[in-house]
Amino acid sequence: MQRTGNHLRSGLRPKARPQRQPKAIKPSADPVDEWLAKCRPGWALPGKFHSDEAIYRADLDRVWRTGWLFAGHTCEIPKPGDYFTLQVDADPLLVIRAQDGSIHGLHNVCRHRGSTICHEETGHVSRLVCPYHQWAYGLDGGLLSCRGMHDLDKSKFGLKKITVREAGGLIYLSLADKPSPFEPAHELLAPLARPQGFHRAKVAKAVDYLVKANWKLVWENNRECYHCNLNHPQYIKANFDHYNADDTTPRIKREINGVVSRSEKKWAASGLAPTHTQTGMTPFPDVENNIWFSANRTPLVDGYLSESMDGKRVGPLMGDYQDADVGTLRIRTLPNFWNHSSCDHAVSTRLLPAGPQLTAIRVWWLVDEKAEEGRDYQLEKLMPFWQLTSEQDWEICERQQRGVNSSAFTPGPYSTFKEYNVDGFVQWYLKMLKRDA
Amino acid sequence: MQRTGNHLRSGLRPKARPQRQPKAIKPSADPVDEWLAKCRPGWALPGKFHSDEAIYRADLDRVWRTGWLFAGHTCEIPKPGDYFTLQVDADPLLVIRAQDGSIHGLHNVCRHRGSTICHEETGHVSRLVCPYHQWAYGLDGGLLSCRGMHDLDKSKFGLKKITVREAGGLIYLSLADKPSPFEPAHELLAPLARPQGFHRAKVAKAVDYLVKANWKLVWENNRECYHCNLNHPQYIKANFDHYNADDTTPRIKREINGVVSRSEKKWAASGLAPTHTQTGMTPFPDVENNIWFSANRTPLVDGYLSESMDGKRVGPLMGDYQDADVGTLRIRTLPNFWNHSSCDHAVSTRLLPAGPQLTAIRVWWLVDEKAEEGRDYQLEKLMPFWQLTSEQDWEICERQQRGVNSSAFTPGPYSTFKEYNVDGFVQWYLKMLKRDA
Amino acid sequence: MQRTGNHLRSGLRPKARPQRQPKAIKPSADPVDEWLAKCRPGWALPGKFHSDEAIYRADLDRVWRTGWLFAGHTCEIPKPGDYFTLQVDADPLLVIRAQDGSIHGLHNVCRHRGSTICHEETGHVSRLVCPYHQWAYGLDGGLLSCRGMHDLDKSKFGLKKITVREAGGLIYLSLADKPSPFEPAHELLAPLARPQGFHRAKVAKAVDYLVKANWKLVWENNRECYHCNLNHPQYIKANFDHYNADDTTPRIKREINGVVSRSEKKWAASGLAPTHTQTGMTPFPDVENNIWFSANRTPLVDGYLSESMDGKRVGPLMGDYQDADVGTLRIRTLPNFWNHSSCDHAVSTRLLPAGPQLTAIRVWWLVDEKAEEGRDYQLEKLMPFWQLTSEQDWEICERQQRGVNSSAFTPGPYSTFKEYNVDGFVQWYLKMLKRDA
Repeated sequence: MQRTGNHLRSGLRPKARPQRQPKAIKPSADPVDEWLAKCRPGWALPGKFHSDEAIYRADLDRVWRTGWLFAGHTCEIPKPGDYFTLQVDADPLLVIRAQDGSIHGLHNVCRHRGSTICHEETGHVSRLVCPYHQWAYGLDGGLLSCRGMHDLDKSKFGLKKITVREAGGLIYLSLADKPSPFEPAHELLAPLARPQGFHRAKVAKAVDYLVKANWKLVWENNRECYHCNLNHPQYIKANFDHYNADDTTPRIKREINGVVSRSEKKWAASGLAPTHTQTGMTPFPDVENNIWFSANRTPLVDGYLSESMDGKRVGPLMGDYQDADVGTLRIRTLPNFWNHSSCDHAVSTRLLPAGPQLTAIRVWWLVDEKAEEGRDYQLEKLMPFWQLTSEQDWEICERQQRGVNSSAFTPGPYSTFKEYNVDGFVQWYLKMLKRDA
Repeated sequence: MQRTGNHLRSGLRPKARPQRQPKAIKPSADPVDEWLAKCRPGWALPGKFHSDEAIYRADLDRVWRTGWLFAGHTCEIPKPGDYFTLQVDADPLLVIRAQDGSIHGLHNVCRHRGSTICHEETGHVSRLVCPYHQWAYGLDGGLLSCRGMHDLDKSKFGLKKITVREAGGLIYLSLADKPSPFEPAHELLAPLARPQGFHRAKVAKAVDYLVKANWKLVWENNRECYHCNLNHPQYIKANFDHYNADDTTPRIKREINGVVSRSEKKWAASGLAPTHTQTGMTPFPDVENNIWFSANRTPLVDGYLSESMDGKRVGPLMGDYQDADVGTLRIRTLPNFWNHSSCDHAVSTRLLPAGPQLTAIRVWWLVDEKAEEGRDYQLEKLMPFWQLTSEQDWEICERQQRGVNSSAFTPGPYSTFKEYNVDGFVQWYLKMLKRDA
Repeated sequence: MQRTGNHLRSGLRPKARPQRQPKAIKPSADPVDEWLAKCRPGWALPGKFHSDEAIYRADLDRVWRTGWLFAGHTCEIPKPGDYFTLQVDADPLLVIRAQDGSIHGLHNVCRHRGSTICHEETGHVSRLVCPYHQWAYGLDGGLLSCRGMHDLDKSKFGLKKITVREAGGLIYLSLADKPSPFEPAHELLAPLARPQGFHRAKVAKAVDYLVKANWKLVWENNRECYHCNLNHPQYIKANFDHYNADDTTPRIKREINGVVSRSEKKWAASGLAPTHTQTGMTPFPDVENNIWFSANRTPLVDGYLSESMDGKRVGPLMGDYQDADVGTLRIRTLPNFWNHSSCDHAVSTRLLPAGPQLTAIRVWWLVDEKAEEGRDYQLEKLMPFWQLTSEQDWEICERQQRGVNSSAFTPGPYSTFKEYNVDGFVQWYLKMLKRDA
């Protein structure tokens, strides 16, 4: 299987594509099929994809309940009994570390009468005891005791399990009965993530947002830097990806070549050399090969050691890093995660669907586990770069949601130079939606 | 017709029931039928019963618009012209005392253009005058005047009537065109309620709650004390019903026998002797006989004269009581009422459906009509026992609602020892739902 | 084509109409058709017309997207580049003055990926630049530049246009592809509106309301003064239209005849003479002739020079007026506008649908463009008359909405003496609803 992250390192950009007409599809009673028939490659999705209840339910069934969802970080639940909760649409979920150190995903729903069991975002328990009638479950979800139920076969009433996998300190879960293989993702992500030390990090801060936009609009926004110039004054000082094939000047090209070659010299042997060495965003996702995961290291602009307001370090080095000049590590996995990591901190973003026009987003700032607030880092220096950039994007998405809700909205074309990844995302999404129809 | 309250005084508990499979029912276009086919006796309802709009509408039509609904107390509207308002889903209702002292139920909706007429929770009027165009109705709803309507047959435009009945100071209404007989309920409730003196009580306080849970979850919670041990630390000090056939120790048995025999000696002749003399809850409802009402007197734990925080009296004796040692009177009527009364106060709880996942609940604290706040009772002593217990339950119900909303929720089995009444409630509900399908 | 405003000056009122039964219409799958079949002339609409989602969507398609909607005043956007925004249901719209002084209506939705472009209620721009990717449009909506889109035919990607027309300083828009002719409305409204000077006015204040009632209930309320006596103590002091054919006493008749003849003598030659000279409201709309616009001048009660709390002037004379004694100018256009103008100020009311049970209402107070707050007028004297009257009506509408939501609501009959215009509105509405079915 082909890997992302460097499979398109040739620097080639997709050519301008002739605008194809949608295939004539016989109208059907299924509103999702009817709307699918109206999609055109290279063009934005019809507005209903961002507001219709039937499409939202199809998204849940065919994307969110089939794919691998980023849940959180192993460092959030270091000890047996530590857990965190999350919610995918109406499904309350639980991720917990068992006595043997293994991590389990469980539906946070009692098998008796359905009460939720854990009500904190994070916590620690010795057993999972339902507050309603005290049915007690082990850390792996097995039913241990249920007073008053005298002839119950306990083995059949454990908490429902969710498949969980870990890659380089990142925890993924799948709600599917038969999850697709996680190994290809692990194979790519684990070695790239390892030096960042997610597994021995700590959460300096997490901020929750409820963004009034469909989750796909949030992704479309994430998949291009066409919007960066005026919307992200902080981000563009540190990065090269708002330049594209059509506006990368010789000066910019020289500049990125300079930092790339410096990095390659320094890191060639140690695995920290950049894997994305161009202006523009690394192509992702790879629709044809169903690749939903990707990671790459890319240099920062000269003078930037960290994605901070002034480019200076904002904390102690993380993970295996011995030197601050390691550029930036970027990870993204569909349908719900991206991470931007510098030498001294890592920022994870998780999307969860909360309605056709509502996305619950959490942003985490991670630092080395030994770093102490006040002494080793200050939140007011650590957070602004990505807090500003994130919030700028949420506002963009909410404005777009209001516009695509218009009865007069018709999808426009994507820029082949600047929005190739948005089109890629849409094609990936449509493939998912059709696959399990 | 068999009566509830003591029809199962034998102390027998239903035996553990073999878990039957649901009957194969041919799928139908009616979503309610489809979901009915998935119900299993002895098991909780599928989650859709607590969230689906079609099921909620069926509940309204087949339960709420056919049954007898508790509305309020006669003592709330002592004088002609006194009224109170309530709302069943979207239907604004009015209960008012007419000049002759009779109580009338009326739709609080003008027959002209539909404005609501009374906007206060309780009030006093000499006529019911619509604020929009001053159509004026008598206290019995008859149209008296309508300026500007010169050829209107007034006899055809009275406020729409709702059947109202009274039993021992409790007011019930029916939204049905042909209500089922109220007499059996009156025959049971009136004599048991009479000594409590609801008809010469006063409202010390009423508290309204909007609970984010389907009304059936609130009832399921009410129909068992399996959850009491850890959730209701106040309640279990005063009562015996959290003990059941499988955990009533000889000491507990001796204890309840002691208070029962003391009570029986004292009250045998006066009708105040306990009618429920066991641990565990009295069985209710009686599905086979369609019994939706029940009342019983039961002893409190030794040392408790009242359901108060310390068991001490919190007000003057109510009604006909000459002695504080009268245990507790309990009344419950489906689909929307229960009452717990002590010698010195009575607590009524009324449920009204406000949406598939929303129940409007009012709790009243009643004391003797002559009692004066400050002098005869203090709210801070009167209220906590049932305020705490009620609010503990609302939180439980909201947690359960969140869990049964999960796409992964599957109904669990009821404990035959502790949840026989929950199953009874569910069977009663399903019978109602099927009857009028 | 017959004109409104004076086409029924004969003073005749429609006779009491025999109550007709609805025609038997074969039930259909379309819920709108089913509900249409239940409407009876002379009677209020069934409650579903004010709550049902399908009917609301039909209202949008057949009324709001076919008719002429009042948008705002030319004086709000005096200079090229000035714009204001509004929203019809989910459609964000923009009205802007171009370089040549012409006024343009545009969908406020970028043709690229659908972001809204202008986010202020009013503002000034030199070009319309989408904040997402800086696609830039001219003031007439034409696409001027779109960085990164190298082979786009710009002529095909201008902002979608909305037809805009102006009449006497009032701006109307149509969302229809082929709007109905605006000329008849212009021909009536422009000369009547001209002396008021809307085109050289300024907004002293605008207040926005979100009223929890269907837009049709707001209109029904507007179309009769049957409710004025008790609900509008301020309004009835200044006006004659709460009197009707059945309660206009000889004294009132003499009174109105007195002010009418005084006005006619004074203004016969100058076009300011009253065009509505009766008690009661001028008949509107004219269903048979599809007349959706109307305006008339009518005298105020003797002693009232302005619709203010005490009848005294609250600002400098507007427009062409040389004398304060000009009665009141009234304009109303379906489906969303009415205006009450005195010699010294004008009050415009605009309705916009925001949901089946939600109407967004803006009320503007206009004064002469040269008037200065503090010096020439005080808001606390200018506003109360119409602010109180408006808010009294919104409360009425919300109460009516709660009542017509009742499952027990059945429509009542309209008074032929006092609610002829409500019936007229309903018949107009039903004609619109059927026309485009």
